Amino acid sequence: MTKILEKTDRTRLRRLHERGAFDRDTIEAILDAQPMCSVGYVIDGKPYVTPTFQWREGDHVYWHGSSASRAIRQSRGQEVCLTVSILDGFVMARSGLHHSANTRSVMLFGRAEPVPDDQKEARLDAFIDGLWPGRSAMLRPTNAQELKATTILSMEITEGSAKVRTGGPIDDEEDYALPIWAGVLPVTRGVGVPAPDPRNLPGVEAPDHITGFRWPD
Amino acid sequence: MTKILEKTDRTRLRRLHERGAFDRDTIEAILDAQPMCSVGYVIDGKPYVTPTFQWREGDHVYWHGSSASRAIRQSRGQEVCLTVSILDGFVMARSGLHHSANTRSVMLFGRAEPVPDDQKEARLDAFIDGLWPGRSAMLRPTNAQELKATTILSMEITEGSAKVRTGGPIDDEEDYALPIWAGVLPVTRGVGVPAPDPRNLPGVEAPDHITGFRWPD
Ligand SMILES: Cc1cc2nc3c(=O)[nH]c(=O)nc-3n(C[C@H](O)[C@H](O)[C@H](O)COP(=O)(O)OP(=O)(O)OC[C@H]3O[C@@H](n4cnc5c(N)ncnc54)[C@H](O)[C@@H]3O)c2cc1C
Ligand SMILES: Cc1cc2nc3c(=O)[nH]c(=O)nc-3n(C[C@H](O)[C@H](O)[C@H](O)COP(=O)(O)OP(=O)(O)OC[C@H]3O[C@@H](n4cnc5c(N)ncnc54)[C@H](O)[C@@H]3O)c2cc1C
Ligand code: HEM
Ligand code: HEM
Repeated sequence: MTKILEKTDRTRLRRLHERGAFDRDTIEAILDAQPMCSVGYVIDGKPYVTPTFQWREGDHVYWHGSSASRAIRQSRGQEVCLTVSILDGFVMARSGLHHSANTRSVMLFGRAEPVPDDQKEARLDAFIDGLWPGRSAMLRPTNAQELKATTILSMEITEGSAKVRTGGPIDDEEDYALPIWAGVLPVTRGVGVPAPDPRNLPGVEAPDHITGFRWPD
Repeated sequence: MTKILEKTDRTRLRRLHERGAFDRDTIEAILDAQPMCSVGYVIDGKPYVTPTFQWREGDHVYWHGSSASRAIRQSRGQEVCLTVSILDGFVMARSGLHHSANTRSVMLFGRAEPVPDDQKEARLDAFIDGLWPGRSAMLRPTNAQELKATTILSMEITEGSAKVRTGGPIDDEEDYALPIWAGVLPVTRGVGVPAPDPRNLPGVEAPDHITGFRWPD
């Protein structure tokens, strides 16, 4: 597995390219920190962006949906762009222009390939256990009919880029003399108090993967 | 202004269409609650999805970037899909299949048109004040050169859809007999303690729009 993705015409950053990164460690850490993604695909020459969950195993990224979904059917075997982004903070400057945001993002490009039937169950277990360690083994097992209704698409991580911004505002030198509050307003992700289903059986307590859930840094 | 967007072949939900909504109030509330978006565009027949901030004024949605950015240049005058999504909670079921997420999302379709020069300043002020009421008036004013370097794209909200899921898991009837914890794990957004820039002038305190910032519900 190459440790650095090759830069292509698709992935060369035009602006602020010093914020770009092509090493797998950076790309994988961002994918693993944010399950939400946006999948872009083309129908009749026009763009569509569908919000979806993604998960990563090794050098592949995966997402799933109904086998009857248009988003899934039109991506299958086609070129897609899968984008993940995390907002870490608002960067407040002394002029409008220098406002920015601390963000981590990944854009991946490639062909979406369907996962074969006999591998679907393992992939979905990895999806569930990635979010909530140990949960898949506690569930009523997935049956053949359910697996048939589910399509999992995968993309090898070969072409893509990460972009990361950290730190405070960078203002024009003369603006530092102005009495304007500048700095960073950090943005956080959390979870609230778990709301048990009213039909849970008596004595069934929330497992550690629920009570101990925290977002990856 | 029509109160309900017309359903088109692009925006008709194929799956779980009862979760779809085409009324402006629902669409606008989601746009106003989530500044992050993903803009999809096509170059040489292939899809690209760029994370960006959006803001809304009336029946238009806006986003901005460098006039030299490829994402901006290739979207200008072209068909785009702008997607916004919010994760409100993980829906934990008794089988894998019935896991889901409480989400609010919007997909908008249309042509991205550049905002004329003489309207850029007002649009950027609205962007800033939308996030932080009153801030634009406190800043060093934006100058002509900065406005020239900035392109603002806009799209009229005419074709699009919202999709909303709320509530607990819906399991297969026989699975309610299983001793498995089901329910909702709410997901929250917050902000941390503001980090002042070390070069702030002595006595300059964080304004209310920083200390009182909260995410819209
Ligand atoms: C949450 C969030 C909000 C943002 N808001 C704005 C905004 O309001 N205005 C703005 O100008 N920019 C914003 N950005 C940055 C934006 O995503 C682009 O990086 C920026 O528009 C510069 O594009 P470019 O012209 O250099 O890249 P392009 O030339 O358009 O892209 C060339 C290649 O560079 C790589 N690349 C570019 N951007 C990214 C990225 N973000 N992540 C990973 N790879 C990338 C891709 O491989 C892409 O194909 C935001 C980013 C994030 C994560
Ligand atoms: C954070 C998040 C995570 C998600 N994760 C998954 C997942 O892992 N697997 C999965 O199957 N689905 C997921 N969804 C739902 C997904 O976005 C689609 O709604 C779903 O794939 C069904 O697509 P479809 O075939 O009915 O819609 P399509 O037939 O593909 O779309 C037709 C039209 O319906 C409208 N539409 C479809 N989906 C949305 C939407 N989400 N918001 C607004 N309008 C929409 C659009 O106008 C679209 O052009 C997620 C949604 C969100 C917000
Ligand atoms: C007067 C107001 C503003 C002007 C004139 C302006 C202008 C610009 C320009 C020209 C760029 C491109 C930078 C480059 O590629 O070299 C840019 C990027 C950006 N802007 Fe703004 N902006 C303004 C306000 C804001 C605000 C309020 C935010 C809020 C979060 C913001 C967030 C961003 C982000 C995240 C980028 C991307 C930076 C990167 O690529 O790393 N901008 N802006
Ligand atoms: C064995 C595991 C799983 C299977 C077999 C499965 C299967 C499916 C199928 C078939 C759909 C399409 C529903 C429809 O359009 O009618 C779907 C949608 C979805 N799944 Fe999964 N899924 C699994 C696990 C998960 C997990 C762990 C999550 C975690 C969050 C999840 C989130 C979603 C979401 C958000 C949708 C969209 C629902 C909507 O459109 O409103 N799924 N899943």
